[in-house]
Amino acid sequence: MELPPKVNICECWARDGIQGEDHFVPTEKKIAMINRMAEIGFKRIEVTSFAHPKLVTQFADSIEVLKGISRHKDVTYIAIVPNDKALDRLLDACNQGYGVQEITAIISASEDHLLANLEKTFAEVMPPLASLVRRARAAGLSVIGCIGTSFGCPLAGEVPIEKVYELTEWYLEQGATSIMPGDTTGEANPLQVSQFYARMKARFPKVDFISHFHDTRGMGLANTFAALQQGIVYHDCSLGSIGGQPATKRPKYHKGFSGNTCTEDMVVMMNEMGIQTGLNDEDVIQTALLAEKMLGKEANGHVTRSGIVRHRSREVLNGNSLYTGMEIFPGILLLTPETIKENPSLKLPELAIRKALEKNGPLPEKLTFDLDKVNVHGSLNERVILVTRFKVAAVLNHGEKAVFEVLSQKSDGQVYMDGVLTIAFGKN
Amino acid sequence: MELPPKVNICECWARDGIQGEDHFVPTEKKIAMINRMAEIGFKRIEVTSFAHPKLVTQFADSIEVLKGISRHKDVTYIAIVPNDKALDRLLDACNQGYGVQEITAIISASEDHLLANLEKTFAEVMPPLASLVRRARAAGLSVIGCIGTSFGCPLAGEVPIEKVYELTEWYLEQGATSIMPGDTTGEANPLQVSQFYARMKARFPKVDFISHFHDTRGMGLANTFAALQQGIVYHDCSLGSIGGQPATKRPKYHKGFSGNTCTEDMVVMMNEMGIQTGLNDEDVIQTALLAEKMLGKEANGHVTRSGIVRHRSREVLNGNSLYTGMEIFPGILLLTPETIKENPSLKLPELAIRKALEKNGPLPEKLTFDLDKVNVHGSLNERVILVTRFKVAAVLNHGEKAVFEVLSQKSDGQVYMDGVLTIAFGKN
Repeated sequence: MELPPKVNICECWARDGIQGEDHFVPTEKKIAMINRMAEIGFKRIEVTSFAHPKLVTQFADSIEVLKGISRHKDVTYIAIVPNDKALDRLLDACNQGYGVQEITAIISASEDHLLANLEKTFAEVMPPLASLVRRARAAGLSVIGCIGTSFGCPLAGEVPIEKVYELTEWYLEQGATSIMPGDTTGEANPLQVSQFYARMKARFPKVDFISHFHDTRGMGLANTFAALQQGIVYHDCSLGSIGGQPATKRPKYHKGFSGNTCTEDMVVMMNEMGIQTGLNDEDVIQTALLAEKMLGKEANGHVTRSGIVRHRSREVLNGNSLYTGMEIFPGILLLTPETIKENPSLKLPELAIRKALEKNGPLPEKLTFDLDKVNVHGSLNERVILVTRFKVAAVLNHGEKAVFEVLSQKSDGQVYMDGVLTIAFGKN
Repeated sequence: MELPPKVNICECWARDGIQGEDHFVPTEKKIAMINRMAEIGFKRIEVTSFAHPKLVTQFADSIEVLKGISRHKDVTYIAIVPNDKALDRLLDACNQGYGVQEITAIISASEDHLLANLEKTFAEVMPPLASLVRRARAAGLSVIGCIGTSFGCPLAGEVPIEKVYELTEWYLEQGATSIMPGDTTGEANPLQVSQFYARMKARFPKVDFISHFHDTRGMGLANTFAALQQGIVYHDCSLGSIGGQPATKRPKYHKGFSGNTCTEDMVVMMNEMGIQTGLNDEDVIQTALLAEKMLGKEANGHVTRSGIVRHRSREVLNGNSLYTGMEIFPGILLLTPETIKENPSLKLPELAIRKALEKNGPLPEKLTFDLDKVNVHGSLNERVILVTRFKVAAVLNHGEKAVFEVLSQKSDGQVYMDGVLTIAFGKN
């Protein structure tokens, strides 16, 4: 199986994500989150929408967001631009130095969906949209041609791929720089995705397609995997898999979760498969947890609860990679009368701690333990099995020291050791 | 892409699912759920565990469950049998006519995991387990050879596939009838699954492998899809993706969700892909919702919230396939001055209702509407776009009639029609 060695991920939380939130996310929070995304390595970020502020109030602050965010040289900032007036506003921002490099133009492959969303038919939507794409290109912007409901429409039913071909060709004629077949309300399944992209890639071999799935039916990762197998390198996602139909007064035509594929789960899956994402698992998980805090609710991510597969992160244990609340890989130690006999210098509890920590990767040479606040309960039997777990309580002096809650249990649940352990890693 | 045309799904809720619950699930609920599973078409059901009742109290009623369930001829009932004493109890039940046809024998591919779970090494575990498999086979039972932590272990780290080969060979020598490489704490990723099963199938081409993933990191469906691509036909899952390390006093070595791949999402994904599961989406969703009710909490399934992709269910709309609370596919209607002119007999609101219902499949000829309790608000403009939604309020006379809450909105959110609609389908 051949997967792309490297992908380019677009984080959509600040637009496709929060558009479904009933409450306005304060501008400073949006800015903080976008900055954070850029800092941890996202190279593509969907930052806002220029939808009419009265229609989608969540983005009434689009200009403030664009003004407020720090600009990272190698990051592409992306905004949704639904119509000519919106493009005017954006180009004005661009001219004043706080624009974006790329916009998303949106149409649906289903006319019913256009009618429900825009109150317009194909014949009414296409001419002004063509002009919008051309104007944006003339102004030096890249343009994503988004084709909503490419995998099915909750209003129209099946959408023929021929319609997606037609709209792709049309977008390319107007100068669109990439094509995003949107799985707007999560109708896609992985077999369909596989067949869809095989056909799209055969027909448009040079086009950059952006894989954009919604996790409505839990298939976001499976669909992403299917798209990867077809060589797709651009992938959209949203922290916590939040999102959905914009919170407007328009009639709802879907139900359930309807956010994008979950960023944190997707990044971990890709990293696990050895695909270069340019992102660190723990950074992404921390950012996802911060996003949950911002919105005041637990989101739909899994790795935020389970943690990564720690033994596949091959880092040497060091204070810089730890954070408060982090649970590190537990370790197990089996001591038999033989091992004890063979190693008269075995020093418990340090040995249990060291053996457990080693499961997380090689230990630095300078490591020193402060066991003063670690309590040992009772004596060990002849044969003992210890499972030792650690939770980071604090990271001190820029990672030179870390404080852990430690709990070591025998296999029957009896506590052998608990308390607080301090480890000094030395200067980095 | 070639996927198996037909799969054989094992529902694990009654064992692998509820083993992680802190509270005892009453025996009558277990029985009701197992019966329900058999009624809706599951052909393989993991019904209980013969783990020591003091260790895993959830299964202290294993005999009562086996005595209580109805027996369906074509259903294979499966129980976990951890040791010889447990097998004695099961064979006793078999002799008295309330046994199972198949058992699961369990070992881990990681010795650390064995130590943590069973307090035993390979050398200590294998001889009695071999004897157990042989005894069960001699008694006419099928035996699943489960190899836990086949995709990685939270205690030991990577697990070499050679160890899984070795244990597979060993199981087959003892007479095991199928092999289940367990993804015990959700370490598997789809690329790994793909490579794993390619190698396993090459080495053991005639063996029936059971794909058994945990959704700990959200990859359950992606892994299942990868397994399907390798031709795997046996798949395990649990309603609501519940499950996890058995609730015992033993030290925890995982965190987060850790249930099996979610049954309702998996079945819908397979049905969507045209794979024969022998299961109806709506039946499975209703059963999943019942399971949530039994445990008093919302589970991790998606299709329970979003519904299926309705336009892919090709059934004629009929009262028998409806249930209270069901939301059916919304419909959109565009009326322009032209369409109104061309069709002077257009009768709203019936037209809006009919157009919407037709999106759910062909309508039966006899359909009659009772619109007495449907309210129409205001008049229509020259051009109107109506999105009409339905929720089943009641199903009467065994499906001859159904009562719907109906809501028809213009695209600006204004309500055009609401109230209660009764449809008579006539005798089936």
